[in-house]
Amino acid sequence: MKVTVLVRPKDGILDPQGEAIDRSLQGLGYASRGVRAGKVFDLELDAATAADARKAASELADAVLANALIEQFEVIVHDG
Amino acid sequence: MKVTVLVRPKDGILDPQGEAIDRSLQGLGYASRGVRAGKVFDLELDAATAADARKAASELADAVLANALIEQFEVIVHDG
Repeated sequence: MKVTVLVRPKDGILDPQGEAIDRSLQGLGYASRGVRAGKVFDLELDAATAADARKAASELADAVLANALIEQFEVIVHDG
Repeated sequence: MKVTVLVRPKDGILDPQGEAIDRSLQGLGYASRGVRAGKVFDLELDAATAADARKAASELADAVLANALIEQFEVIVHDG
């Protein structure tokens, strides 16, 4: 089953990469008023049901993909 | 206007980071059958309309956020 996990810096956590991109975009003339940078992971998981896939993805995101201290994650199951 | 840009490796382009994560997940006992790793950017853009925001985001994604040779991008405008 295809699952997307989005990992983003938590609100209030500094994001130097996003700030650098924001400044670059402004320097290039884009009307950027803030950027936050994170990661996207597209996974193919063996799972019997969408609920199983969501549970497994949440577990592995918490354990491996995201640093819970500074990052939050979102799981999207592409069901079908 | 809030815009999300997802940048992913193009189909057929090797993704060593995703492959490493896939192996790690399997080693940890997760039923992972493939991982592709990319980046997510959440931007606040000055734009009068959702169409303007989409146009600006597509331009800056093409120019700055994605390497067109090896990456594809997707723009999501959060309208309202």
